Amino acid sequence: MPQMTTRRPVHRINAGGMSRRPDDLVVEAPLELHLDDTTLAVLMRTPGHDTELAAGWLLVESGTSAPEHIRQLRGCWKNETDAIEITLAAGVEPPRPRSFVTGAACGVCSADQLTLGPAIATCEKVLSADVARELPDALRRGQRAFERTGGLHAAALATYDGVLGPVREDVGRHNAVDKVLGRALMEGELPATDRLLVVSGRVSFEIVQKAVAAGVSGIVAVSAPSSMAVDLCEEYGLVLVGMMRRDHFNIYASADRVSA
Amino acid sequence: MPQMTTRRPVHRINAGGMSRRPDDLVVEAPLELHLDDTTLAVLMRTPGHDTELAAGWLLVESGTSAPEHIRQLRGCWKNETDAIEITLAAGVEPPRPRSFVTGAACGVCSADQLTLGPAIATCEKVLSADVARELPDALRRGQRAFERTGGLHAAALATYDGVLGPVREDVGRHNAVDKVLGRALMEGELPATDRLLVVSGRVSFEIVQKAVAAGVSGIVAVSAPSSMAVDLCEEYGLVLVGMMRRDHFNIYASADRVSA
Repeated sequence: MPQMTTRRPVHRINAGGMSRRPDDLVVEAPLELHLDDTTLAVLMRTPGHDTELAAGWLLVESGTSAPEHIRQLRGCWKNETDAIEITLAAGVEPPRPRSFVTGAACGVCSADQLTLGPAIATCEKVLSADVARELPDALRRGQRAFERTGGLHAAALATYDGVLGPVREDVGRHNAVDKVLGRALMEGELPATDRLLVVSGRVSFEIVQKAVAAGVSGIVAVSAPSSMAVDLCEEYGLVLVGMMRRDHFNIYASADRVSA
Repeated sequence: MPQMTTRRPVHRINAGGMSRRPDDLVVEAPLELHLDDTTLAVLMRTPGHDTELAAGWLLVESGTSAPEHIRQLRGCWKNETDAIEITLAAGVEPPRPRSFVTGAACGVCSADQLTLGPAIATCEKVLSADVARELPDALRRGQRAFERTGGLHAAALATYDGVLGPVREDVGRHNAVDKVLGRALMEGELPATDRLLVVSGRVSFEIVQKAVAAGVSGIVAVSAPSSMAVDLCEEYGLVLVGMMRRDHFNIYASADRVSA
Protein backbone atom coordinates (compact mmCIF):
# COMPACT_ATOMS: atom_id res chain seq x y z
CA MET A 1 0.00 0.00 0.00
CA PRO A 2 1.58 3.31 -1.01
CA GLN A 3 1.89 6.03 1.58
CA MET A 4 -1.17 8.27 1.73
CA THR A 5 0.33 10.46 4.44
CA THR A 6 3.83 11.59 5.23
CA ARG A 7 5.41 12.78 8.45
CA ARG A 8 7.17 16.13 8.19
CA PRO A 9 8.73 18.51 10.69
CA VAL A 10 6.66 21.67 11.22
CA HIS A 11 6.98 24.61 13.56
CA ARG A 12 4.00 25.12 15.83
CA ILE A 13 3.21 28.48 17.36
CA ASN A 14 1.08 28.55 20.49
CA ALA A 15 0.89 30.48 23.76
CA GLY A 16 4.30 29.10 24.72
CA GLY A 17 6.02 30.38 21.58
CA MET A 18 7.47 28.36 18.70
CA SER A 19 8.34 24.66 18.89
CA ARG A 20 9.38 22.06 16.36
CA ARG A 21 7.36 18.86 16.07
CA PRO A 22 6.45 16.22 13.48
CA ASP A 23 3.12 16.52 11.66
CA ASP A 24 1.22 14.25 9.26
CA LEU A 25 0.54 15.70 5.81
CA VAL A 26 -1.62 14.25 3.07
CA VAL A 27 0.55 13.12 0.17
CA GLU A 28 -0.20 14.77 -3.17
CA ALA A 29 1.78 13.54 -6.16
CA PRO A 30 1.35 13.39 -9.94
CA LEU A 31 0.06 10.30 -11.76
CA GLU A 32 0.48 10.24 -15.52
CA LEU A 33 -2.01 8.38 -17.70
CA HIS A 34 -0.37 7.03 -20.84
CA LEU A 35 -2.11 5.62 -23.93
CA ASP A 36 0.37 4.18 -26.40
CA ASP A 37 3.00 6.91 -26.59
CA THR A 38 0.68 9.75 -25.60
CA THR A 39 0.26 11.29 -22.16
CA LEU A 40 -3.51 11.63 -21.81
CA ALA A 41 -3.47 13.46 -18.49
CA VAL A 42 -1.47 14.19 -15.39
CA LEU A 43 -3.61 13.79 -12.28
CA MET A 44 -2.56 15.29 -8.96
CA ARG A 45 -3.69 12.63 -6.52
CA THR A 46 -3.02 10.84 -3.26
CA PRO A 47 -1.20 7.57 -4.10
CA GLY A 48 -3.15 4.34 -3.76
CA HIS A 49 -5.68 2.51 -5.97
CA ASP A 50 -4.13 4.16 -9.01
CA THR A 51 -5.52 1.67 -11.54
CA GLU A 52 -9.00 2.28 -10.14
CA LEU A 53 -8.42 6.01 -10.48
CA ALA A 54 -7.38 5.53 -14.10
CA ALA A 55 -10.46 3.39 -14.81
CA GLY A 56 -12.73 5.97 -13.18
CA TRP A 57 -11.12 8.72 -15.21
CA LEU A 58 -11.71 6.73 -18.41
CA LEU A 59 -15.37 6.22 -17.45
CA VAL A 60 -16.15 9.90 -17.86
CA GLU A 61 -13.49 10.85 -20.39
CA SER A 62 -14.04 8.14 -22.97
CA GLY A 63 -17.22 6.37 -22.01
CA THR A 64 -15.52 3.08 -21.13
CA SER A 65 -18.16 1.62 -18.85
CA ALA A 66 -17.48 -2.14 -18.99
CA PRO A 67 -14.38 -4.16 -18.02
CA GLU A 68 -14.03 -5.48 -21.58
CA HIS A 69 -13.55 -1.92 -22.88
CA ILE A 70 -10.16 -1.81 -21.15
CA ARG A 71 -7.64 -4.43 -22.17
CA GLN A 72 -4.99 -3.54 -19.60
CA LEU A 73 -4.03 -1.01 -16.95
CA ARG A 74 -0.38 -1.34 -15.99
CA GLY A 75 1.28 0.66 -13.24
CA CYS A 76 4.82 1.81 -13.90
CA TRP A 77 7.39 4.26 -12.62
CA LYS A 78 9.06 6.28 -15.34
CA ASN A 79 11.11 9.48 -15.26
CA GLU A 80 10.65 9.58 -11.48
CA THR A 81 6.86 9.73 -11.82
CA ASP A 82 4.08 7.18 -11.26
CA ALA A 83 2.19 6.32 -14.40
CA ILE A 84 -0.59 4.01 -15.58
CA GLU A 85 -0.21 2.59 -19.07
CA ILE A 86 -3.64 2.11 -20.60
CA THR A 87 -4.47 -0.34 -23.37
CA LEU A 88 -8.04 -0.07 -24.63
CA ALA A 89 -9.92 -2.85 -26.38
CA ALA A 90 -10.19 -2.71 -30.16
CA GLY A 91 -12.94 -0.35 -31.29
CA VAL A 92 -13.04 1.71 -28.09
CA GLU A 93 -12.72 5.41 -28.85
CA PRO A 94 -9.66 6.81 -27.02
CA PRO A 95 -10.01 10.05 -25.05
CA ARG A 96 -8.50 13.07 -26.72
CA PRO A 97 -5.04 13.88 -25.36
CA ARG A 98 -4.88 16.76 -22.96
CA SER A 99 -1.82 18.74 -22.19
CA PHE A 100 -3.07 20.21 -18.96
CA VAL A 101 -2.54 18.83 -15.50
CA THR A 102 -5.71 17.91 -13.67
CA GLY A 103 -5.72 19.16 -10.13
CA ALA A 104 -6.29 17.01 -7.07
CA ALA A 105 -9.46 18.93 -6.45
CA CYS A 106 -10.65 18.53 -9.98
CA GLY A 107 -13.03 16.26 -11.78
CA VAL A 108 -12.55 17.82 -15.13
CA CYS A 109 -14.59 16.28 -17.86
CA SER A 110 -15.07 16.67 -21.56
CA ALA A 111 -18.12 18.80 -20.95
CA ASP A 112 -18.35 20.07 -24.48
CA GLN A 113 -19.82 16.64 -25.07
CA LEU A 114 -21.13 16.26 -21.50
CA THR A 115 -20.62 12.54 -21.18
CA LEU A 116 -23.89 11.80 -19.49
CA GLY A 117 -25.70 8.50 -19.65
CA PRO A 118 -29.42 8.04 -20.20
CA ALA A 119 -31.73 9.33 -17.49
CA ILE A 120 -32.11 6.81 -14.66
CA ALA A 121 -35.86 6.94 -14.71
CA THR A 122 -36.13 3.22 -14.14
CA CYS A 123 -34.86 3.20 -10.55
CA GLU A 124 -37.76 3.00 -8.16
CA LYS A 125 -35.74 2.28 -5.03
CA VAL A 126 -36.66 4.34 -1.99
CA LEU A 127 -34.02 5.68 0.40
CA SER A 128 -35.17 5.57 4.01
CA ALA A 129 -34.18 8.47 6.26
CA ASP A 130 -32.67 6.03 8.76
CA VAL A 131 -30.31 4.60 6.15
CA ALA A 132 -29.40 8.07 4.87
CA ARG A 133 -28.53 9.23 8.39
CA GLU A 134 -26.21 6.25 8.96
CA LEU A 135 -24.22 6.42 5.72
CA PRO A 136 -21.91 9.37 6.54
CA ASP A 137 -20.88 7.70 9.81
CA ALA A 138 -20.28 4.42 8.02
CA LEU A 139 -18.11 6.26 5.49
CA ARG A 140 -16.10 7.86 8.28
CA ARG A 141 -15.60 4.50 10.00
CA GLY A 142 -14.36 3.09 6.71
CA GLN A 143 -11.61 5.72 6.46
CA ARG A 144 -8.16 5.02 7.76
CA ALA A 145 -7.12 6.61 11.03
CA PHE A 146 -5.56 9.80 9.71
CA GLU A 147 -8.42 10.64 7.45
CA ARG A 148 -10.88 10.67 10.33
CA THR A 149 -9.14 13.90 11.26
CA GLY A 150 -10.53 15.38 8.06
CA GLY A 151 -7.40 15.43 5.94
CA LEU A 152 -8.67 13.34 3.06
CA HIS A 153 -11.93 13.16 1.17
CA ALA A 154 -13.70 9.82 1.00
CA ALA A 155 -16.30 8.15 -1.21
CA ALA A 156 -18.02 4.78 -1.46
CA LEU A 157 -20.97 3.09 -3.10
CA ALA A 158 -23.78 1.83 -0.85
CA THR A 159 -26.95 -0.21 -1.26
CA TYR A 160 -30.35 1.24 -0.40
CA ASP A 161 -30.21 -1.08 2.64
CA GLY A 162 -27.22 0.89 3.93
CA VAL A 163 -24.48 -1.63 3.17
CA LEU A 164 -21.32 0.27 2.28
CA GLY A 165 -18.82 -0.98 -0.31
CA PRO A 166 -15.05 -0.32 -0.24
CA VAL A 167 -14.11 3.21 0.83
CA ARG A 168 -11.59 5.15 -1.29
CA GLU A 169 -9.77 8.30 -0.22
CA ASP A 170 -7.88 11.13 -1.85
CA VAL A 171 -6.77 14.70 -1.27
CA GLY A 172 -9.22 15.50 -4.09
CA ARG A 173 -12.94 14.79 -3.81
CA HIS A 174 -13.17 13.96 -7.49
CA ASN A 175 -10.33 11.47 -7.35
CA ALA A 176 -11.96 9.65 -4.42
CA VAL A 177 -15.12 9.33 -6.52
CA ASP A 178 -13.13 8.22 -9.59
CA LYS A 179 -11.42 5.49 -7.53
CA VAL A 180 -14.77 4.19 -6.30
CA LEU A 181 -16.44 4.24 -9.73
CA GLY A 182 -13.31 2.89 -11.44
CA ARG A 183 -13.32 -0.08 -9.09
CA ALA A 184 -16.99 -0.71 -9.87
CA LEU A 185 -16.21 -0.49 -13.59
CA MET A 186 -13.38 -3.03 -13.28
CA GLU A 187 -15.65 -5.36 -11.31
CA GLY A 188 -18.34 -5.17 -14.01
CA GLU A 189 -20.79 -3.53 -11.63
CA LEU A 190 -21.83 -0.64 -13.92
CA PRO A 191 -24.40 0.74 -14.41
CA ALA A 192 -24.79 0.73 -10.64
CA THR A 193 -28.49 1.56 -10.83
CA ASP A 194 -29.31 0.12 -7.42
CA ARG A 195 -26.48 1.93 -5.67
CA LEU A 196 -25.99 5.28 -3.94
CA LEU A 197 -22.77 7.30 -4.11
CA VAL A 198 -21.73 8.48 -0.64
CA VAL A 199 -19.29 11.42 -0.53
CA SER A 200 -17.59 13.17 2.37
CA GLY A 201 -17.75 16.72 1.09
CA ARG A 202 -19.82 18.98 -1.06
CA VAL A 203 -21.45 18.07 -4.35
CA SER A 204 -20.60 20.04 -7.47
CA PHE A 205 -21.66 19.58 -11.07
CA GLU A 206 -18.79 17.22 -11.81
CA ILE A 207 -19.56 14.82 -8.98
CA VAL A 208 -23.07 14.41 -10.36
CA GLN A 209 -21.67 14.05 -13.87
CA LYS A 210 -19.52 11.12 -12.70
CA ALA A 211 -22.45 9.57 -10.85
CA VAL A 212 -24.61 9.78 -13.97
CA ALA A 213 -21.85 8.25 -16.12
CA ALA A 214 -21.73 5.32 -13.67
CA GLY A 215 -25.51 5.01 -13.64
CA VAL A 216 -25.91 5.35 -9.87
CA SER A 217 -29.38 6.47 -8.84
CA GLY A 218 -28.64 8.66 -5.83
CA ILE A 219 -26.05 10.69 -3.94
CA VAL A 220 -25.66 11.07 -0.17
CA ALA A 221 -23.33 13.96 0.72
CA VAL A 222 -22.13 15.13 4.11
CA SER A 223 -22.23 18.77 2.96
CA ALA A 224 -24.29 20.92 0.60
CA PRO A 225 -24.65 20.76 -3.20
CA SER A 226 -24.30 23.59 -5.70
CA SER A 227 -27.25 24.84 -7.73
CA MET A 228 -26.04 23.02 -10.82
CA ALA A 229 -25.59 19.75 -8.95
CA VAL A 230 -29.24 19.94 -7.89
CA ASP A 231 -30.37 20.76 -11.44
CA LEU A 232 -28.47 17.79 -12.89
CA CYS A 233 -29.85 15.38 -10.26
CA GLU A 234 -33.39 16.54 -11.02
CA GLU A 235 -32.80 16.15 -14.75
CA TYR A 236 -31.43 12.62 -14.46
CA GLY A 237 -33.74 11.42 -11.68
CA LEU A 238 -31.07 10.99 -9.00
CA VAL A 239 -31.94 11.25 -5.33
CA LEU A 240 -29.76 13.94 -3.74
CA VAL A 241 -29.56 14.30 0.04
CA GLY A 242 -27.01 16.36 1.94
CA MET A 243 -26.17 18.66 4.84
CA MET A 244 -26.22 15.66 7.15
CA ARG A 245 -26.47 17.05 10.69
CA ARG A 246 -27.09 15.37 14.01
CA ASP A 247 -30.78 16.27 14.03
CA HIS A 248 -31.67 16.86 10.39
CA PHE A 249 -30.71 16.60 6.75
CA ASN A 250 -31.99 18.00 3.45
CA ILE A 251 -33.40 16.38 0.32
CA TYR A 252 -32.44 18.43 -2.72
CA ALA A 253 -33.76 16.26 -5.55
CA SER A 254 -36.18 13.38 -6.12
CA ALA A 255 -37.85 13.71 -2.71
CA ASP A 256 -40.48 11.21 -3.86
CA ARG A 257 -37.82 8.49 -3.52
CA VAL A 258 -36.97 9.31 0.10
CA SER A 259 -39.12 8.12 3.02
CA ALA A 260 -39.15 9.92 6.39
CA MET B 1 -23.75 42.15 -8.88
CA PRO B 2 -24.68 38.70 -10.19
CA GLN B 3 -26.34 36.28 -7.84
CA MET B 4 -23.85 34.15 -5.91
CA THR B 5 -26.56 32.22 -4.10
CA THR B 6 -30.03 31.08 -5.07
CA ARG B 7 -33.04 30.20 -2.99
CA ARG B 8 -34.55 26.80 -3.75
CA PRO B 9 -37.21 24.66 -2.11
CA VAL B 10 -35.79 21.64 -0.29
CA HIS B 11 -37.33 18.95 1.86
CA ARG B 12 -35.92 18.80 5.37
CA ILE B 13 -36.09 15.63 7.44
CA ASN B 14 -35.85 15.96 11.21
CA ALA B 15 -37.38 14.38 14.30
CA GLY B 16 -40.77 15.77 13.27
CA GLY B 17 -40.72 14.12 9.85
CA MET B 18 -40.46 15.76 6.43
CA SER B 19 -41.19 19.43 5.75
CA ARG B 20 -40.73 21.72 2.77
CA ARG B 21 -38.74 24.94 3.20
CA PRO B 22 -36.58 27.30 1.16
CA ASP B 23 -32.80 26.91 1.31
CA ASP B 24 -29.88 28.96 -0.03
CA LEU B 25 -27.60 27.17 -2.48
CA VAL B 26 -24.31 28.38 -3.89
CA VAL B 27 -24.68 29.13 -7.59
CA GLU B 28 -22.40 27.15 -9.90
CA ALA B 29 -22.57 27.99 -13.60
CA PRO B 30 -20.28 27.74 -16.64
CA LEU B 31 -18.16 30.64 -17.88
CA GLU B 32 -16.64 30.27 -21.33
CA LEU B 33 -13.33 31.94 -22.14
CA HIS B 34 -13.12 32.90 -25.81
CA LEU B 35 -10.03 34.01 -27.72
CA ASP B 36 -10.90 35.07 -31.26
CA ASP B 37 -13.14 32.27 -32.43
CA THR B 38 -11.73 29.63 -30.12
CA THR B 39 -13.14 28.50 -26.79
CA LEU B 40 -10.07 28.31 -24.55
CA ALA B 41 -11.82 26.87 -21.51
CA VAL B 42 -15.13 26.41 -19.80
CA LEU B 43 -14.83 27.22 -16.10
CA MET B 44 -17.46 26.06 -13.60
CA ARG B 45 -17.63 28.99 -11.25
CA THR B 46 -19.81 31.13 -8.99
CA PRO B 47 -20.87 34.22 -10.98
CA GLY B 48 -19.25 37.54 -10.06
CA HIS B 49 -15.91 39.16 -10.89
CA ASP B 50 -15.75 37.15 -14.10
CA THR B 51 -13.21 39.40 -15.83
CA GLU B 52 -10.92 39.04 -12.82
CA LEU B 53 -11.37 35.28 -12.99
CA ALA B 54 -10.42 35.33 -16.67
CA ALA B 55 -7.35 37.48 -15.96
CA GLY B 56 -6.29 35.15 -13.14
CA TRP B 57 -6.74 32.15 -15.40
CA LEU B 58 -4.56 33.79 -18.05
CA LEU B 59 -1.88 34.52 -15.44
CA VAL B 60 -1.10 30.84 -15.01
CA GLU B 61 -2.14 29.55 -18.42
CA SER B 62 -0.28 31.96 -20.64
CA GLY B 63 2.02 33.92 -18.40
CA THR B 64 0.20 37.25 -18.87
CA SER B 65 1.38 39.02 -15.74
CA ALA B 66 0.97 42.72 -16.61
CA PRO B 67 -2.13 44.74 -17.57
CA GLU B 68 -0.60 45.64 -20.91
CA HIS B 69 -0.46 41.95 -21.89
CA ILE B 70 -4.26 41.92 -22.10
CA ARG B 71 -5.83 44.35 -24.56
CA GLN B 72 -9.44 43.67 -23.58
CA LEU B 73 -11.69 41.41 -21.52
CA ARG B 74 -15.31 41.75 -22.57
CA GLY B 75 -18.19 40.02 -20.82
CA CYS B 76 -20.96 38.69 -23.04
CA TRP B 77 -23.89 36.32 -22.98
CA LYS B 78 -24.02 33.99 -25.92
CA ASN B 79 -25.92 30.76 -26.54
CA GLU B 80 -27.43 31.07 -23.05
CA THR B 81 -23.98 31.01 -21.43
CA ASP B 82 -21.80 33.67 -19.84
CA ALA B 83 -18.54 34.25 -21.66
CA ILE B 84 -15.49 36.48 -21.53
CA GLU B 85 -14.02 37.49 -24.86
CA ILE B 86 -10.27 37.91 -24.50
CA THR B 87 -8.09 40.05 -26.72
CA LEU B 88 -4.38 39.74 -25.98
CA ALA B 89 -1.80 42.36 -26.84
CA ALA B 90 0.34 41.81 -29.93
CA GLY B 91 3.21 39.43 -29.24
CA VAL B 92 1.63 37.73 -26.21
CA GLU B 93 1.62 33.97 -26.62
CA PRO B 94 -1.99 32.73 -26.44
CA PRO B 95 -2.77 29.72 -24.24
CA ARG B 96 -3.34 26.51 -26.10
CA PRO B 97 -7.04 25.75 -26.58
CA ARG B 98 -8.45 23.10 -24.30
CA SER B 99 -11.53 21.12 -24.97
CA PHE B 100 -12.12 20.06 -21.40
CA VAL B 101 -14.27 21.82 -18.84
CA THR B 102 -12.42 23.01 -15.77
CA GLY B 103 -14.26 22.18 -12.61
CA ALA B 104 -15.24 24.64 -9.94
CA ALA B 105 -12.90 22.85 -7.60
CA CYS B 106 -10.06 22.90 -10.05
CA GLY B 107 -7.03 25.02 -10.65
CA VAL B 108 -5.81 23.15 -13.63
CA CYS B 109 -2.64 24.50 -15.10
CA SER B 110 -0.38 23.75 -17.97
CA ALA B 111 1.86 21.79 -15.70
CA ASP B 112 3.83 20.12 -18.45
CA GLN B 113 5.51 23.49 -18.60
CA LEU B 114 4.85 24.29 -14.92
CA THR B 115 4.39 28.00 -15.31
CA LEU B 116 6.41 29.00 -12.28
CA GLY B 117 8.15 32.28 -11.90
CA PRO B 118 11.64 32.84 -10.55
CA ALA B 119 12.24 31.93 -6.92
CA ILE B 120 11.17 34.70 -4.56
CA ALA B 121 14.45 34.70 -2.72
CA THR B 122 14.47 38.47 -2.48
CA CYS B 123 11.58 38.82 -0.04
CA GLU B 124 12.89 39.39 3.45
CA LYS B 125 9.59 40.39 5.03
CA VAL B 126 8.79 38.69 8.32
CA LEU B 127 5.27 37.54 9.18
CA SER B 128 4.46 38.07 12.85
CA ALA B 129 2.39 35.42 14.61
CA ASP B 130 -0.11 38.06 15.72
CA VAL B 131 -0.80 39.15 12.15
CA ALA B 132 -1.03 35.52 10.96
CA ARG B 133 -3.60 34.73 13.68
CA GLU B 134 -5.81 37.67 12.68
CA LEU B 135 -5.88 37.11 8.92
CA PRO B 136 -8.38 34.20 8.76
CA ASP B 137 -10.87 36.18 10.87
CA ALA B 138 -10.38 39.24 8.68
CA LEU B 139 -11.04 37.07 5.62
CA ARG B 140 -14.24 35.73 7.17
CA ARG B 141 -15.43 39.22 8.04
CA GLY B 142 -14.82 40.24 4.42
CA GLN B 143 -17.13 37.52 3.12
CA ARG B 144 -20.76 38.25 2.44
CA ALA B 145 -23.33 36.95 4.90
CA PHE B 146 -24.12 33.62 3.30
CA GLU B 147 -20.54 32.61 2.90
CA ARG B 148 -19.87 32.96 6.60
CA THR B 149 -21.95 29.82 6.84
CA GLY B 150 -19.21 28.02 4.98
CA GLY B 151 -20.83 27.68 1.58
CA LEU B 152 -18.19 29.49 -0.45
CA HIS B 153 -14.41 29.56 -0.46
CA ALA B 154 -12.71 32.91 -0.07
CA ALA B 155 -9.30 34.40 -0.84
CA ALA B 156 -7.59 37.79 -0.55
CA LEU B 157 -4.16 39.38 -0.65
CA ALA B 158 -2.83 40.95 2.55
CA THR B 159 0.16 43.03 3.57
CA TYR B 160 2.63 41.77 6.17
CA ASP B 161 1.04 44.39 8.48
CA GLY B 162 -2.24 42.50 8.30
CA VAL B 163 -4.16 44.84 5.98
CA LEU B 164 -6.48 42.76 3.84
CA GLY B 165 -7.30 43.65 0.22
CA PRO B 166 -10.61 42.89 -1.55
CA VAL B 167 -12.05 39.46 -0.73
CA ARG B 168 -13.22 37.25 -3.59
CA GLU B 169 -15.44 34.18 -3.25
CA ASP B 170 -16.33 31.13 -5.30
CA VAL B 171 -17.68 27.63 -4.97
CA GLY B 172 -14.18 26.57 -6.08
CA ARG B 173 -11.09 27.41 -4.05
CA HIS B 174 -9.02 27.85 -7.17
CA ASN B 175 -11.46 30.26 -8.74
CA ALA B 176 -11.48 32.44 -5.62
CA VAL B 177 -7.68 32.62 -5.86
CA ASP B 178 -7.81 33.32 -9.61
CA LYS B 179 -10.23 36.21 -9.02
CA VAL B 180 -7.92 37.75 -6.42
CA LEU B 181 -4.78 37.36 -8.49
CA GLY B 182 -6.57 38.41 -11.69
CA ARG B 183 -7.67 41.63 -9.99
CA ALA B 184 -4.08 42.28 -8.87
CA LEU B 185 -2.88 41.63 -12.43
CA MET B 186 -5.40 44.10 -13.87
CA GLU B 187 -4.37 46.71 -11.28
CA GLY B 188 -0.71 46.31 -12.23
CA GLU B 189 0.19 45.00 -8.79
CA LEU B 190 2.13 41.92 -9.92
CA PRO B 191 4.56 40.57 -8.91
CA ALA B 192 3.01 41.00 -5.45
CA THR B 193 6.27 40.26 -3.67
CA ASP B 194 5.30 42.10 -0.48
CA ARG B 195 1.92 40.39 -0.22
CA LEU B 196 0.54 37.24 1.39
CA LEU B 197 -2.22 35.13 -0.15
CA VAL B 198 -4.89 34.28 2.42
CA VAL B 199 -7.14 31.32 1.59
CA SER B 200 -10.13 29.85 3.42
CA GLY B 201 -9.47 26.18 2.75
CA ARG B 202 -6.65 23.77 2.23
CA VAL B 203 -3.56 24.35 0.13
CA SER B 204 -2.79 22.05 -2.76
CA PHE B 205 -0.04 22.13 -5.37
CA GLU B 206 -2.08 24.33 -7.71
CA ILE B 207 -2.76 27.01 -5.14
CA VAL B 208 0.98 27.39 -4.61
CA GLN B 209 1.54 27.31 -8.35
CA LYS B 210 -0.82 30.29 -8.75
CA ALA B 211 0.83 32.13 -5.86
CA VAL B 212 4.25 31.63 -7.41
CA ALA B 213 3.00 32.86 -10.81
CA ALA B 214 1.75 36.03 -9.09
CA GLY B 215 5.02 36.44 -7.21
CA VAL B 216 3.44 36.52 -3.73
CA SER B 217 5.88 35.62 -0.98
CA GLY B 218 3.68 33.75 1.47
CA ILE B 219 0.42 31.86 2.01
CA VAL B 220 -1.81 31.88 5.09
CA ALA B 221 -4.36 29.05 4.97
CA VAL B 222 -7.15 28.22 7.39
CA SER B 223 -6.58 24.49 6.86
CA ALA B 224 -3.69 22.15 6.10
CA PRO B 225 -1.45 21.92 3.02
CA SER B 226 -0.58 18.81 1.00
CA SER B 227 2.94 17.43 0.88
CA MET B 228 3.52 18.87 -2.57
CA ALA B 229 2.28 22.32 -1.55
CA VAL B 230 4.90 22.34 1.21
CA ASP B 231 7.63 21.18 -1.17
CA LEU B 232 6.81 23.91 -3.68
CA CYS B 233 6.76 26.62 -1.00
CA GLU B 234 10.15 25.49 0.25
CA GLU B 235 11.55 25.47 -3.27
CA TYR B 236 10.31 28.98 -4.08
CA GLY B 237 10.94 30.52 -0.69
CA LEU B 238 7.28 31.16 0.22
CA VAL B 239 6.18 31.32 3.84
CA LEU B 240 3.43 28.75 4.40
CA VAL B 241 1.35 28.80 7.57
CA GLY B 242 -1.88 26.90 8.14
CA MET B 243 -4.11 24.89 10.45
CA MET B 244 -5.17 28.12 12.12
CA ARG B 245 -6.77 27.13 15.43
CA ARG B 246 -7.87 29.16 18.41
CA ASP B 247 -4.71 28.39 20.38
CA HIS B 248 -2.12 27.45 17.78
CA PHE B 249 -1.11 27.29 14.12
CA ASN B 250 1.61 25.58 12.11
CA ILE B 251 4.45 26.88 9.96
CA TYR B 252 5.10 24.49 7.09
CA ALA B 253 7.73 26.38 5.09
CA SER B 254 10.20 29.26 5.52
CA ALA B 255 9.90 29.33 9.33
CA ASP B 256 12.82 31.77 9.40
CA ARG B 257 10.45 34.43 8.05
CA VAL B 258 7.86 33.99 10.82
CA SER B 259 8.29 35.55 14.28
CA ALA B 260 6.55 34.12 17.34
